[in-house]
Amino acid sequence: MNLSDLATPAALIDEARMMRNIERMQQRMAALGVRLRPHVKTSKCVEVAQRQCDAGARGIAVSTLKEAEQFFAAGFSDILYAVGIAPSKLDRALALCRSGCALTVIVDSLATAQAVIAKVRMSGHAFDVMIEIDSDGHRSGVKSGDPVLIEIGEALRSGGMTIKGVMTHAGSSYDLDTPDALHALAERERGEAVRAAERLRAAGLPCPEVSVGSTPTALSAAQLDGVTEVRAGVYVFFDLVMSNVGICGVQDVALSVLATVIGHQPEKGWAIVDAGWMAMSRDRGTQRQKIDYGYGAICDAAGHPIDGLILVGANQEHGIVSHRGAPDAAIARHLPIGTQIRILPNHACATGTQFSEYHMLNARGVAQTWRRFDGW
Amino acid sequence: MNLSDLATPAALIDEARMMRNIERMQQRMAALGVRLRPHVKTSKCVEVAQRQCDAGARGIAVSTLKEAEQFFAAGFSDILYAVGIAPSKLDRALALCRSGCALTVIVDSLATAQAVIAKVRMSGHAFDVMIEIDSDGHRSGVKSGDPVLIEIGEALRSGGMTIKGVMTHAGSSYDLDTPDALHALAERERGEAVRAAERLRAAGLPCPEVSVGSTPTALSAAQLDGVTEVRAGVYVFFDLVMSNVGICGVQDVALSVLATVIGHQPEKGWAIVDAGWMAMSRDRGTQRQKIDYGYGAICDAAGHPIDGLILVGANQEHGIVSHRGAPDAAIARHLPIGTQIRILPNHACATGTQFSEYHMLNARGVAQTWRRFDGW
Repeated sequence: MNLSDLATPAALIDEARMMRNIERMQQRMAALGVRLRPHVKTSKCVEVAQRQCDAGARGIAVSTLKEAEQFFAAGFSDILYAVGIAPSKLDRALALCRSGCALTVIVDSLATAQAVIAKVRMSGHAFDVMIEIDSDGHRSGVKSGDPVLIEIGEALRSGGMTIKGVMTHAGSSYDLDTPDALHALAERERGEAVRAAERLRAAGLPCPEVSVGSTPTALSAAQLDGVTEVRAGVYVFFDLVMSNVGICGVQDVALSVLATVIGHQPEKGWAIVDAGWMAMSRDRGTQRQKIDYGYGAICDAAGHPIDGLILVGANQEHGIVSHRGAPDAAIARHLPIGTQIRILPNHACATGTQFSEYHMLNARGVAQTWRRFDGW
Repeated sequence: MNLSDLATPAALIDEARMMRNIERMQQRMAALGVRLRPHVKTSKCVEVAQRQCDAGARGIAVSTLKEAEQFFAAGFSDILYAVGIAPSKLDRALALCRSGCALTVIVDSLATAQAVIAKVRMSGHAFDVMIEIDSDGHRSGVKSGDPVLIEIGEALRSGGMTIKGVMTHAGSSYDLDTPDALHALAERERGEAVRAAERLRAAGLPCPEVSVGSTPTALSAAQLDGVTEVRAGVYVFFDLVMSNVGICGVQDVALSVLATVIGHQPEKGWAIVDAGWMAMSRDRGTQRQKIDYGYGAICDAAGHPIDGLILVGANQEHGIVSHRGAPDAAIARHLPIGTQIRILPNHACATGTQFSEYHMLNARGVAQTWRRFDGW
């Protein structure tokens, strides 16, 4: 199948780029002496996750229990549900465990730990639990020095839970864009997680695993002493935000949206395409970065960037393509109606989720169509 | 079923509010003497569209051919595909017409008109076509005074097409927030569409229909002389953007996202919930408006706004709830773990699309679950 056979908009994966991204991260983790647990929330795709595991990854992280159920049904059994579990979701988690899934849940409060313990008392099943650590103040987790960390650990142990260890995610790495700042945050992420682990162990509590990670810190860490595994998601596709962060190039972005030119406003230098925010998502992650790509960077159908052309605006099913500089008065001649273009996304996780399937491109053209999971 | 039985995040429709919104728009159109053609891209839901038609709407507008196919299969036959058609989509449109769907396509260039004509020559089927007019410069369409308008009309007629009329959408109305500005834009939208129709008629071309509309202009027009139908979409649910535009109140917003509190950062006054941008979308439409609601306005589970509480941040499956003013140091007591909240969206079209189903609430609780279409 050729690109011209696809109904637009369509999500494309460049297999060669993706495989290069997978190899790069796997080699880096091997060099640092840690296991890699890919976060499959980026792709939500069995074929993509399988390639990550084939390259050497061990286990997966998921962002929803539905992902856990779907990936478990597809043969993945070592699954970390990397969002603090709501007490109302414990029955669903329990059902997964009883089906044979090695599911780990995370907690960052005594209240949630007690809800898990209460469920265990009723069910007789001891959950594998990790304690979430707040290493950079951006979202969830217990501070490594907070007395409640030990209280949670003791509650889990006395409640009969299997304490698997600690995990943290330095998500503020997405806001950085210099190697020095990224390196420092990676070291902070490592240091806070290791410190939390050491405090638990000093209190006589088990803490076999120390799990850290975000794509930018994973690719910026100089050493990961005391860490046992790294989690990273967006590296598999990369995107324009990651390019601005400085950990990949635009030529590494493996996900794009195929679109068709449907109109022009020649005096404004606009071409109108059939990919709006429904296809690209509303993610404007590059808005405050070094280079603002609007809703995406425009490439020709072969995937070569067209210099200076971006998606300057997006309505639900309309995208507005324009040069970031002076308007191209001849845009209707350069991109006539019916022309196919490819748009690189700001944020691969957000753009991917707008589609129920990916079309995988290799040297032979559109080689396969892969399903993408959604929902909760 | 009760709210507490729903897995979160979940999309809720408040039936009473929705029915009030539907009645309001229908009565307004009746008073202005025009037909109402709801744009179903907002809900993508048969049960919602059926209620709009039951209240008096005639026909629907869609934003994708997949919507057209799905709504036609559900019994809707008068369908305007309100996005300029890509030549590569004409076969799919033709198949719909041949199945008995009264599908209208739109064109705004000679190139697209010629592509439609070429398809007609090959197929023998004459498409119903409207010419899109650019009434406010925000996106697509031909200017009402542009000579190409007549050229397109003549090409369509000589190509054997049925010219249904002209249509325009003053989408820049979303950027306004005063009654005077809205009133002026509604009059401009009407005036440009009517002027285009008059020019076509003066050239001896048929133009039976003059279709205009956006929710803000539809609710702001003082008169619609010369207009035959109005299209509007988001009014069925309304949202925080529309509240800031000034055409509804927060208490009219019929769509919300049910979420569960999963954690806290007490010193920051944060509650963490299980609705991030995957549930709310990345739409930050209120960012530059009078009141910035972050990623949404927080209500209790019964739907009553909690004063000053908004979703200040959103990651993929985490939302950060905080007061817009001073942090609430007692937020963990006010919103303990497991608490359900409802979040009103910035943009109903964007938030709705993150879900595959709606749960309809009436006085009896969660009364029905309705499917939502997606994809292309």
